[in-house]
Amino acid sequence: MTASQIASSSIIDDIARLTREAARQLAVLSTDAKNQAIVAIAIALEAATPEILAANAADCKAAAAAGIPKPLYARLKLDETKLQGAIAGVRDVGRLSDPVGAVQIHRELDTGLILKRITCPLGVLGVIFEARPDAVMQISTLAIKSGNGVILKGGQEAVRSCEALVKAIRQGLTQTGINPDVVQLLTTREETLELLKLDQYVDLIIPRGSNSFVRFVQNNTRIPVLGHAEGICHVYVDEAADIEKAVAITVDAKTHYPAACNALETLLVHNAIASEFLPKVAKSLQEKNVELRGDEKTCQILDIAAATEADWVTEYSDLILSIKVVHSLEDAINHINTYGSKHTDAIVTESSEAAATFLAQVDAAGVFHNCSTRFSDGFRYGFGAEVGISTQKMPPRGPVGLEGLVTYKYQIVGDGHIAASYSGADAKPFIHRDL
Amino acid sequence: MTASQIASSSIIDDIARLTREAARQLAVLSTDAKNQAIVAIAIALEAATPEILAANAADCKAAAAAGIPKPLYARLKLDETKLQGAIAGVRDVGRLSDPVGAVQIHRELDTGLILKRITCPLGVLGVIFEARPDAVMQISTLAIKSGNGVILKGGQEAVRSCEALVKAIRQGLTQTGINPDVVQLLTTREETLELLKLDQYVDLIIPRGSNSFVRFVQNNTRIPVLGHAEGICHVYVDEAADIEKAVAITVDAKTHYPAACNALETLLVHNAIASEFLPKVAKSLQEKNVELRGDEKTCQILDIAAATEADWVTEYSDLILSIKVVHSLEDAINHINTYGSKHTDAIVTESSEAAATFLAQVDAAGVFHNCSTRFSDGFRYGFGAEVGISTQKMPPRGPVGLEGLVTYKYQIVGDGHIAASYSGADAKPFIHRDL
Repeated sequence: MTASQIASSSIIDDIARLTREAARQLAVLSTDAKNQAIVAIAIALEAATPEILAANAADCKAAAAAGIPKPLYARLKLDETKLQGAIAGVRDVGRLSDPVGAVQIHRELDTGLILKRITCPLGVLGVIFEARPDAVMQISTLAIKSGNGVILKGGQEAVRSCEALVKAIRQGLTQTGINPDVVQLLTTREETLELLKLDQYVDLIIPRGSNSFVRFVQNNTRIPVLGHAEGICHVYVDEAADIEKAVAITVDAKTHYPAACNALETLLVHNAIASEFLPKVAKSLQEKNVELRGDEKTCQILDIAAATEADWVTEYSDLILSIKVVHSLEDAINHINTYGSKHTDAIVTESSEAAATFLAQVDAAGVFHNCSTRFSDGFRYGFGAEVGISTQKMPPRGPVGLEGLVTYKYQIVGDGHIAASYSGADAKPFIHRDL
Repeated sequence: MTASQIASSSIIDDIARLTREAARQLAVLSTDAKNQAIVAIAIALEAATPEILAANAADCKAAAAAGIPKPLYARLKLDETKLQGAIAGVRDVGRLSDPVGAVQIHRELDTGLILKRITCPLGVLGVIFEARPDAVMQISTLAIKSGNGVILKGGQEAVRSCEALVKAIRQGLTQTGINPDVVQLLTTREETLELLKLDQYVDLIIPRGSNSFVRFVQNNTRIPVLGHAEGICHVYVDEAADIEKAVAITVDAKTHYPAACNALETLLVHNAIASEFLPKVAKSLQEKNVELRGDEKTCQILDIAAATEADWVTEYSDLILSIKVVHSLEDAINHINTYGSKHTDAIVTESSEAAATFLAQVDAAGVFHNCSTRFSDGFRYGFGAEVGISTQKMPPRGPVGLEGLVTYKYQIVGDGHIAASYSGADAKPFIHRDL
């Protein structure tokens, strides 16, 4: 370690410890107190609008001078309308139901010995995101609503914007009973690496960024990570598919928002329907400027480029689609379970039996029948907010709402009960009656 | 890698792949089919009793010759009564409710567009346990009940017993529709290391063994681990405690089963009650041969050895107790949140306010009021079975029953629905009505 690395490491350690201490107080606040704090944040952001816009203008000027790509510039740019929209989003989080304090189990173990399983905050979240300043407002508010402290690290190009936003948020918190230390901002890449090591203070890392960045985070921390490295989604058009639905679903899944993780990457088509379906879907896709790549059988039907093995494991995030002809439902399921990323996969069929087999046997967070993969989304599921989408097997899996930011604890209240009474020769039985 | 390591690695890879494939078929079986398989296993184990007892006798003879400690020998030894008890336990698992197929969310997103969140098996479990052959029967049955394949690795001393048991279990499965490859046995330490690397095939590792072994597993795999390295549990005797209850709870938590992870390791006592309580509890504990170690203040009241900083972070798993006098409820909570292992901590008090603060602010899987820490247990909670106890923050946390062996997937059934209909100028609204 260099001297500056040691300094950075000990500073982050201090920041994380402060966040944890502040979060412990936040964790026990009432829903009302948290909602009032969220309103105070919205008011403080409104009051700081000139400073926030000025900071963002400086970020944008520097980014433009450095020549960042247009889509990144669009995400970085925060004008008054976008800021007002984000502040409205802050107030919306106040209206979501509180994920903390839900009683999941309430059980009489024995007379006067009562077990409860109650949701509670995780503690401290570490959220690493790209240069999009609106994320600061959304994430901070979701953290406070769920009773968690949060350590934020935004993309380097947005550093002035993030600083102005976090300053306003913390200013808003000083008007409430909440210690402003629950919201922290890191500004350097070195600090990010330190953050990933702090498993004694940080309970969950949420990386938002490129696939390779998420994979880097997953491989470099012992802290649980909420996120997915890849979204390789499939649509399988069964032999019993309604062709019109299949075309509409394929075009929507591929072209509605190609950069989204729930967009279609590989189309699987049953052999029996391929010669009828493929020319129709190809025409619709090509009208939307989608580049097609097919396996051998597909290329016998369509005049398109040949797909290679690499295509089956590629998330294009662009107007490109690979196509494969399969000989059975089982073939399709095997392809998906082999090459997919366990994100979202759909079958188009009028056979309820084929649909049931697909939904049961495809191993993915989302398994859909006769609808677009694009529905895989926390807002569309009615979660009110989406914290991230997880492709891990263990819960939380799929789109994760506020409930992904809480855990639970078991509480037992007794009256001097001891375990020895329930074992040995004269053992009392347990009642185990749900209340 | 040496040639033999390469060979071992590729064999384990094949075993894990076979297990995953067999588990995919198991995952979609009905509750009845799984329960029939569990009965078939029980019958096969009964039929193989002579072979199993002979194999165990050979293990015991070798272990005795090698001079293994008495408690380990007792766990290794499988006589006819113990085997019959374990087979009865197998049949009991058949009677537990099926954790697979539970509908957790059922929601109309729009007319004809229905979302369900349904529990499903994880896939393949890797379970590494000590030389206790009864674990083979319990774990295999819990895996099948939850629809998972399982790769077992038992302690080296039990290798003959484990082989005989797994042979009988697989023999039982051949009488059913379940591929016997869902239950696999590894027999060497090298294979364990290989198993920890197979994150593409194995979905959850459950290590059962010493703290240092669990920590080793946690530090050497990317696969999620269900387990806890340490159980440093506390009892805090508040100034408003009922002394009689406090003595009974302390003695029970420390002496009922000192080797258990939910046993008491550190007693915290409020200053205001210390001079009255400590002599009474010390007398009761010393009658049970508990060695006491105290902080400075405790040693002013009791004639016992001095505790050092190391005592606060030690799980004795033995008849030893460290004692500290604290000056407030807050002091007690801080001590627990600093030195505890987030397993189970209890307060003894007649003040409901102090109890509420303790239950809210202590960060542990189990937070108890006026009862022994020993109640932290899946069977005592009424889970029917306990797969393990987790001290991680993310769920599953605390004692984990069969529900810890399943995950969930989101299913959507539509009728040609596409996402484009719900965005843009003429966007349809979502209904989001729970069914």
